[in-house]
Amino acid sequence: MFDTLIRNARIITMDDAAPIIDMGCIGIKNGKIAFIGKDEPPMVYNAADIIDARGNIILPGLINTHCHAAMSVLRGYADDYNLNTWLFDKIFPAEGRLTEAAVLSGVRLSAAEMLASGTTSFSDMYFFEPSAARVIEEIGIRASLGNGVTALSDDFDFDTDRGVWETFELIRDWHGAANGRIRADVSIHGEYTSRPDVWEKLASLASKHELVTQIHVSETQGEQLGCIERHGMTPVQILDKYGVFENRVLAAHGCWLTDEDMDILAKRGASVAHNPVSNLKLASGIARVSELLKRDINVSIGTDGCASNNNLDLFEEIKLASLLAKGSSLDPTSLPAYDALKLATVNGAYAQGREDEIGMLKVGYDSDLIMLDVHNPRLQPIYDPISAAVYAANGSDVCLTMVQGRILYKNGEWFSIDIERAFHDIYNVAVPLIINR
Amino acid sequence: MFDTLIRNARIITMDDAAPIIDMGCIGIKNGKIAFIGKDEPPMVYNAADIIDARGNIILPGLINTHCHAAMSVLRGYADDYNLNTWLFDKIFPAEGRLTEAAVLSGVRLSAAEMLASGTTSFSDMYFFEPSAARVIEEIGIRASLGNGVTALSDDFDFDTDRGVWETFELIRDWHGAANGRIRADVSIHGEYTSRPDVWEKLASLASKHELVTQIHVSETQGEQLGCIERHGMTPVQILDKYGVFENRVLAAHGCWLTDEDMDILAKRGASVAHNPVSNLKLASGIARVSELLKRDINVSIGTDGCASNNNLDLFEEIKLASLLAKGSSLDPTSLPAYDALKLATVNGAYAQGREDEIGMLKVGYDSDLIMLDVHNPRLQPIYDPISAAVYAANGSDVCLTMVQGRILYKNGEWFSIDIERAFHDIYNVAVPLIINR
Repeated sequence: MFDTLIRNARIITMDDAAPIIDMGCIGIKNGKIAFIGKDEPPMVYNAADIIDARGNIILPGLINTHCHAAMSVLRGYADDYNLNTWLFDKIFPAEGRLTEAAVLSGVRLSAAEMLASGTTSFSDMYFFEPSAARVIEEIGIRASLGNGVTALSDDFDFDTDRGVWETFELIRDWHGAANGRIRADVSIHGEYTSRPDVWEKLASLASKHELVTQIHVSETQGEQLGCIERHGMTPVQILDKYGVFENRVLAAHGCWLTDEDMDILAKRGASVAHNPVSNLKLASGIARVSELLKRDINVSIGTDGCASNNNLDLFEEIKLASLLAKGSSLDPTSLPAYDALKLATVNGAYAQGREDEIGMLKVGYDSDLIMLDVHNPRLQPIYDPISAAVYAANGSDVCLTMVQGRILYKNGEWFSIDIERAFHDIYNVAVPLIINR
Repeated sequence: MFDTLIRNARIITMDDAAPIIDMGCIGIKNGKIAFIGKDEPPMVYNAADIIDARGNIILPGLINTHCHAAMSVLRGYADDYNLNTWLFDKIFPAEGRLTEAAVLSGVRLSAAEMLASGTTSFSDMYFFEPSAARVIEEIGIRASLGNGVTALSDDFDFDTDRGVWETFELIRDWHGAANGRIRADVSIHGEYTSRPDVWEKLASLASKHELVTQIHVSETQGEQLGCIERHGMTPVQILDKYGVFENRVLAAHGCWLTDEDMDILAKRGASVAHNPVSNLKLASGIARVSELLKRDINVSIGTDGCASNNNLDLFEEIKLASLLAKGSSLDPTSLPAYDALKLATVNGAYAQGREDEIGMLKVGYDSDLIMLDVHNPRLQPIYDPISAAVYAANGSDVCLTMVQGRILYKNGEWFSIDIERAFHDIYNVAVPLIINR
């Protein structure tokens, strides 16, 4: 007997052995996929809860491998500025005023947005992460959390630094918590905001606890050139020299990676989180995704924070990743639909160190899945569900989101988030800290 | 007394004199805007129908200045092919099998999608256009229709050609019909599918009836180079030589326009319909939008057909237009939100020859408007409604669509389209002609 059985679904499994099951059925037991295959009528009577998908598309929950969830409080606060004005005059001062309550209101709002648009797991880099973990545990979404450690000033002290301290707290209290849904990541904010002795210490911490390391790498040309000036080598090269890539690294952006950088990433089994919307909006550059994939580098996808996007809709990123790969190479066969969808599923799972848990719909995997309502002119007719999901859909087509077998969102309703309270908190706790200053 | 009064709205007027009315009110009488301003309570009691916008965003209905509406029947039928395979092996053969009923089923489906995603007016280039006009009249959306005349073979005869004949029929029966909602356009498919004597005849037809001329121009590098080989000059230059630009021209794509081409377009007051999604997906190139705008050329926006997009969501195009302008120039101040929104509103109205009717919310203009439901985590918080509409929203946030004062779509319901019949027709009339061949 299954806990839940979903019937009459167009299933995109993302399992290369059988990527599509045309009219199929998924049986869920104890939060895991216990059966997946063509509809078999006798099973219908053998589940506590039966969901008739009515031909809707089911696919693995999407994985956002680079975001700063709390930044939803800054959505639309500062657009169309040049990078330095945006960062130093608008974003950093506003962030400096954010209290723990304001950050948590942003995390809750973002979790609501992610669940409603099909994201079931995200990698986050921000501060107040141990507190964010409590919110995430309560909501039921999956997350890999890291405080992006910065060591900008000379009086940085590793043993008392807040970012380091939060990292220890995450490892001690949250790694593997909430039935494995929460992971602690080590996070170095970036080469340009830190120094070699800190990288070495964080690399050995990641190695000791077998953690993924999140880091911003080669996002802008200025960062890339500045690093060469500072260290005589690129960010990837200098970070590799100090042992960062001996662990599994999730490198965000990578717009300016050189061929030599890519060789190092390939050799080290690192992942690159592609952030196409943010990279265009901030005019950072365009990552050479097809080149990365050609070298067997694991490319995943991310939205970055809402201040540079301005939403968390992974369907937008997946489509844009494919469009940009085609447009920038003048080759319309670049990054076809199925490969684009991999960035946000199987590749995302590897990037998070969760490749045996999520990213595919397969017996034994956790039941993190989403349903797209196809009873909508935008998705009709359907010749190929993968094409529909990648090129026609947007996050608003998601009508059901499940994590570890638990339905967290369905048809405009959140079951673990009080959405009115979330809006109330944003306007009462966060917005007043940001405006009128 | 107004027919309809909308209160408590965040209004984006697109009128440079006062682009935003923060908590405002719109009074509608006989399909036109009769009042627009801050909420004035006494008025509330003075309308047949009162709509409380509850802080939702109201903006002018969006204008799609380049599409092939019927091609929704081919959505997702052929992706990720190189251009020649896509066009000659997949799209053209399938189109050759489309009957009038199949084309009309596609037009109806697309109208439903456009209304649900905020488009109230579109420029269409296809065949069976006089029949499509009947469907459009019935649905209540606004459209400028042209049969893109091709003259590929030597036995092309202007007087008996179907495209020319449909153009005459459109002019005779449909120009200005349906209370001005329908316009006949002259349409030349493109330089590469036609010849000078045909351009001359169509140009004089456009001139005689004062019609807009739709034409594909400089979409691909192959088209551009081929034209130079054939005629010793670019498409814009040769078309100008034969008088096409003496009328108001709506040139679609323009990815490969030279500086000299732009000078001609500027001098002639032509419009360029930018199609960012299609241009990337087919790897045609990236139009130099900022360059065009710098020369005071009117740039509007289009989705192109669903076979190369694969949806008709103008919010996607507006955001991508801004992102591409920033990313391709490495300047994040390029095409800011308000300017990007102009492409789909005021600039679209000019491109269609409707600049005194639509594109702005202003007293005396037709009441073509849309409402975005902001009670959604993706759009919260709101610091600036223009930023929310351009960078955070998608077409699914549209909760109300009105053309000439008549509500055609509201909260998932179409009032002039039987959506179940539309789906039924697609699968029974169109899809069988396309698959299994």
